[in-house]
Amino acid sequence: MHFQDWLAACVNNVEAALEKALPGANEVPVELHEAMRYATLGGGKRIRATLVYAAGRAALQQGVAIDSYSHALDKAAAAVELIHAYSLIHDDLPCMDDDVLRRGQPTVHVRFGEATAMLAGDALQPLAFSELAQMPVAPALVVQAVQVLGRVAGSLGMVGGQAIDLASVNQTLTLEQLQFMHRLKTGALIEGSVLLGAIVTGATSETRRALETYGSAIGLAFQIVDDILDVTVDTEGLGKTAGKDADENKPTYVSIMGLEESRDFARKLYEVAIEAIKPLGDSAIRLKELADFIIHRSY
Amino acid sequence: MHFQDWLAACVNNVEAALEKALPGANEVPVELHEAMRYATLGGGKRIRATLVYAAGRAALQQGVAIDSYSHALDKAAAAVELIHAYSLIHDDLPCMDDDVLRRGQPTVHVRFGEATAMLAGDALQPLAFSELAQMPVAPALVVQAVQVLGRVAGSLGMVGGQAIDLASVNQTLTLEQLQFMHRLKTGALIEGSVLLGAIVTGATSETRRALETYGSAIGLAFQIVDDILDVTVDTEGLGKTAGKDADENKPTYVSIMGLEESRDFARKLYEVAIEAIKPLGDSAIRLKELADFIIHRSY
Repeated sequence: MHFQDWLAACVNNVEAALEKALPGANEVPVELHEAMRYATLGGGKRIRATLVYAAGRAALQQGVAIDSYSHALDKAAAAVELIHAYSLIHDDLPCMDDDVLRRGQPTVHVRFGEATAMLAGDALQPLAFSELAQMPVAPALVVQAVQVLGRVAGSLGMVGGQAIDLASVNQTLTLEQLQFMHRLKTGALIEGSVLLGAIVTGATSETRRALETYGSAIGLAFQIVDDILDVTVDTEGLGKTAGKDADENKPTYVSIMGLEESRDFARKLYEVAIEAIKPLGDSAIRLKELADFIIHRSY
Repeated sequence: MHFQDWLAACVNNVEAALEKALPGANEVPVELHEAMRYATLGGGKRIRATLVYAAGRAALQQGVAIDSYSHALDKAAAAVELIHAYSLIHDDLPCMDDDVLRRGQPTVHVRFGEATAMLAGDALQPLAFSELAQMPVAPALVVQAVQVLGRVAGSLGMVGGQAIDLASVNQTLTLEQLQFMHRLKTGALIEGSVLLGAIVTGATSETRRALETYGSAIGLAFQIVDDILDVTVDTEGLGKTAGKDADENKPTYVSIMGLEESRDFARKLYEVAIEAIKPLGDSAIRLKELADFIIHRSY
């Protein structure tokens, strides 16, 4: 299967899993559920979900068919996309980034009001953990998965990164500080996605370590590319307000390292990621292709 | 052990468990962790935590010592208090109830700013699930616990109740609608606390059903008593702004049923709860005492 077809299949699968996980739009409280569905369904590149599927495949023991894990991977993929969706809702709120546009559409609070937006985000979090708890795999693996998601979504992961980001407006950050922030803010959930896929299909500890290196490198690369796109692509192309970070005096890789050095750094991280999954051979092909896709998305 | 001593021991235990669960106040991001600790530690009656301990004891198989479950119950108790603490932070925000006082202290957003308050709440949620995932019990029981917490904390539980509450300002609600709202908003997490305790100590399905009836009745009674206290006790006694619901034209049991009928209804629910746990005999003594405590707390 060509990468683009595989990618489309992953997106279809996680979209179906999300549709199944979310309460219907006519379930009471109706507006809350509409907001949750608006924020979650039918949009986004689903990078995190595809990483779950790709890592699941890469970690598969020889001779085992991926099909026997497809339901569990769907639920793990839905879980990370639910966490991602909630984080975007809260990130866009007036007390945070105050963004009105997301994927070319009004943000959730613009459409549903601030209180409903906050509550929609609040309700997507437990739904993510419920999805993990429903994975048809050994309970001990579910427990590991909940531990991983709990860690990467918390104050020492994604939310911690948001807090540092918030505090960094109008501050001068060193490259090290910027990196620490991004490792938490974007990196943690991306690394977590890779780990969840690996846990579901029962990765050996050696494979898990390799995938951690891959996830960590690709998570950081993802953010650097984001920073680059923020200055090189216009609002229409991005589907969100372009040049916003620079306007707000938020430190970025581009503002600290410059454009060319940022590109070099992203390439270096790409190589680290590829090197890490080499021992996994052909089973890691989708991870390799995803790394290409993440690095080359628009430049 | 006298009830008050047992209660104090429970509060001590969950306080210690929360202290252990929360990152230290000097861990980066410092302000976020300070806010999380400010919101969570050293306050509150810990009703939900004590229900976890009491239900755990009531569901214990004959001949098994409660001590072998104390670590697991501590973590389950911490989990429900973390969820409760996060819900209070978000509930107090300007876009929600806009409250400046909680337990006689400035609310989290007054003290730390809105963005940090929102993020502190966001980070307490995954921490709650992490606590469940670390309970030293059979993984299959952890999975059940995560399912229960995921359900009661989500859009068909607590957050759903918040959303209905929000939409009900200046609305005329029927008693049925008010009840539905409270079953979700306060009842779900209280019922969940009882269920989590029961799951940890391996309740039979019969015991679980009895405890569900107890939890559901006591959860509703708790809210009715809250409504009564809101009109009968002053701000100083409550530690939060008194008479607020009436001022905001929020429907309450008192506004719909009147004070005397509300008291009768609370007493009736108390009897339902007591009746449900009768078959459990002496092991349910703390549940009985807690029901007394909840019903009689200041009138």
